[in-house]
Amino acid sequence: MKEALQDKLKQTAELLHEKMDILLPSINKGRVGESRLSEAMRYSSLSGGKRLRPFLVVASASLFGVSRDSALQAAAAVEFIHAYSLVHDDLPALDNDDMRRGQPSCHVKFDEATAILAGDGLLTLAFEVLAHPSTHYDSNVRADLILALSEAVGAKGMIGGQMMDLISEEKELTIEEVTRLQRMKTSALFAVSCEAGAILGKAARPLRNALRGYAHDIGLAFQITDDLLDAEIGEEHPKKGERKDKSSGKGTYVSVLGVDKAKMQAKILSQQAIAHLEVFGNRADMLKELARFVVGREN
Amino acid sequence: MKEALQDKLKQTAELLHEKMDILLPSINKGRVGESRLSEAMRYSSLSGGKRLRPFLVVASASLFGVSRDSALQAAAAVEFIHAYSLVHDDLPALDNDDMRRGQPSCHVKFDEATAILAGDGLLTLAFEVLAHPSTHYDSNVRADLILALSEAVGAKGMIGGQMMDLISEEKELTIEEVTRLQRMKTSALFAVSCEAGAILGKAARPLRNALRGYAHDIGLAFQITDDLLDAEIGEEHPKKGERKDKSSGKGTYVSVLGVDKAKMQAKILSQQAIAHLEVFGNRADMLKELARFVVGREN
Repeated sequence: MKEALQDKLKQTAELLHEKMDILLPSINKGRVGESRLSEAMRYSSLSGGKRLRPFLVVASASLFGVSRDSALQAAAAVEFIHAYSLVHDDLPALDNDDMRRGQPSCHVKFDEATAILAGDGLLTLAFEVLAHPSTHYDSNVRADLILALSEAVGAKGMIGGQMMDLISEEKELTIEEVTRLQRMKTSALFAVSCEAGAILGKAARPLRNALRGYAHDIGLAFQITDDLLDAEIGEEHPKKGERKDKSSGKGTYVSVLGVDKAKMQAKILSQQAIAHLEVFGNRADMLKELARFVVGREN
Repeated sequence: MKEALQDKLKQTAELLHEKMDILLPSINKGRVGESRLSEAMRYSSLSGGKRLRPFLVVASASLFGVSRDSALQAAAAVEFIHAYSLVHDDLPALDNDDMRRGQPSCHVKFDEATAILAGDGLLTLAFEVLAHPSTHYDSNVRADLILALSEAVGAKGMIGGQMMDLISEEKELTIEEVTRLQRMKTSALFAVSCEAGAILGKAARPLRNALRGYAHDIGLAFQITDDLLDAEIGEEHPKKGERKDKSSGKGTYVSVLGVDKAKMQAKILSQQAIAHLEVFGNRADMLKELARFVVGREN
C-alpha cells in the first residue's frame, strides 16, 4: 500500500506538471515584460514539491467518477495558489527565505518586484482556470469551486493565518491561537483541495463535509510534522542546509506543546482523519494511506 | 450634463462605499492577526479615489436594467482589484510610493509584509464576491464575470503591463510597446469594468464589445491625461506635493510623443470612445460625458 501511494503520488505529479505547463502563460522572448513574468511564474510553480494538495483533489474526485481532465485542471488551480503563497511568503518582508525546494527562491532568482507580480499572476491564474468552461461544463460547479477556494485562501483563511504567523514572532500564542493559526494557514487549503473533488463530482453535502474534515486534520498533522522535522534538524538530519530556513514564529504546536506532545497530537489527527473516511469504505484506502504518510514522512 | 455626471459619480461612490464596507472583513480586535489584515484591507480600499471603474460597471449595467445591488457588488469587486494593484504597485520593490490619495500608502501606514498580504486579500476577496450567488442568480453570469476579470488583470493584462512598466525604466520603448503596455496596465481593467455591466445584463455580444471598445479607449485617454498632469506639475499645479510620486518609467505616451501629440492623442481617443456608443443612442449620454471628463480633468 505504501508503494502504491508513492507510485500514485508520482504519477499524479507528472500529469499535473503537464497540465500546469499548458495552463501557464508561455514565454514569448519578443515581449520582454510578459516573458519575464511568465518565466517567474513557471519557475515558481513547475519545480518540484510533493504536490500533496493536487493529489487530494485528484484522489477525492476519483471517488465520484470525475473525469481526469476536470480533476487535473482544478488540481492545477490549487497548486498555483500554493505556489503563489510560497513566493510571497519567501519575500524579505515576510519569511525572508533565500531557498525553496533546493533552489533560489523567486525573489533571489529574479528580483522582489518580479516575485510580487509573479505571485499575483499565479493567484489570478488559479481563478481564471477554475472559471473556464473546460474545467467543468456546469457553471454552478465552477462558481462553487471559486467560492470555496477564495474563502479558504482569503483573509479568513490562508492569508489571515500568514498574518497571524508574522505577529506570532512578537507575541506568545496560546494553544487555541496556535490551532486557529495552523488551521487557517495550512489546513484551509488542504480542506478545500479535498472538497474540490467532491464539488466537481456534485457529491452530497455529508460526503463533501467528510472529505473536508479529513483534509483539515491531515493538514494540521502535516504542519505539525513539518515543525517537528524543523525542530529535529541537527540531531537526526545532519544535512541541515538542505531544509528551507523556516519562519521562526512561536505559533507552532512544537513550540507550545513540546516535541513529545506534538508528535502524539499529529498521530491523533492522522487517526481522526482516517475515521472521517469510514463512509467511503475501502474506496478511500489511498487517502487513508496518505493520512499515515503525512505523519511518517522524513522530509 | 457635466454637473449631472459629477453628481452621479459622487452618488455611485457613496453607494459603493457602503457596499465595500459590508463586503470587507470586519475588524475583530480580539483576533490580532486578522484584525491587522482587515484594517489594512479597509484602509487601502475605502479611502477616496474617483471610483471611475466601479462607475463604469454601474453605468453600463444600468443600460440593461441590471439590479442596483448586483451592479454594486460587481463594482466593489472591480474596485478591490484596483485597490490591490495600487497597494502592490506602491511597495518599495515596485514604484516605491510613500503617499497614495493624500495618505501614507499601505506599507508606510502598516508595514511591507502587511501590505503584501492586504493586497493578496483584496484580490482574493474580489473573486469571492463575484462567485457568491448574491452577485447574480445565474452561475453562468458569475463564472463569465470571473473569467473576464481574471483574464483582464492576469499575466496577459494588468500584471503583465506592470511588469513591462518596471522594465521600461531600464529600456526605451517604441510607440507600439507603449500602447501595448498602457492597454494592458490600465485599459484592460477599464474595459472589463464596462463589460461587466453587459455580462450582468446578459447583453448581446456586439453591445458587450461596443462597451469594451469604449472603455478601452477611455482607459488609454485617462492614462495619457494622468501622465500629462504629471508632466505639467510645477507649471500649472504649484501644490506639487499633493500628487502622488509616480514611477519614472519611460513607457508613457508623453515620454515617447511629447506633450502636444499626447494631448491630441487623448482627445482622439475620447472621441473614438464616444463613437463606440452610438448604438445606445442617448441612453449612453452619461458614459459619453465621462469620456469628455477623463481628458478634461485637472486632478
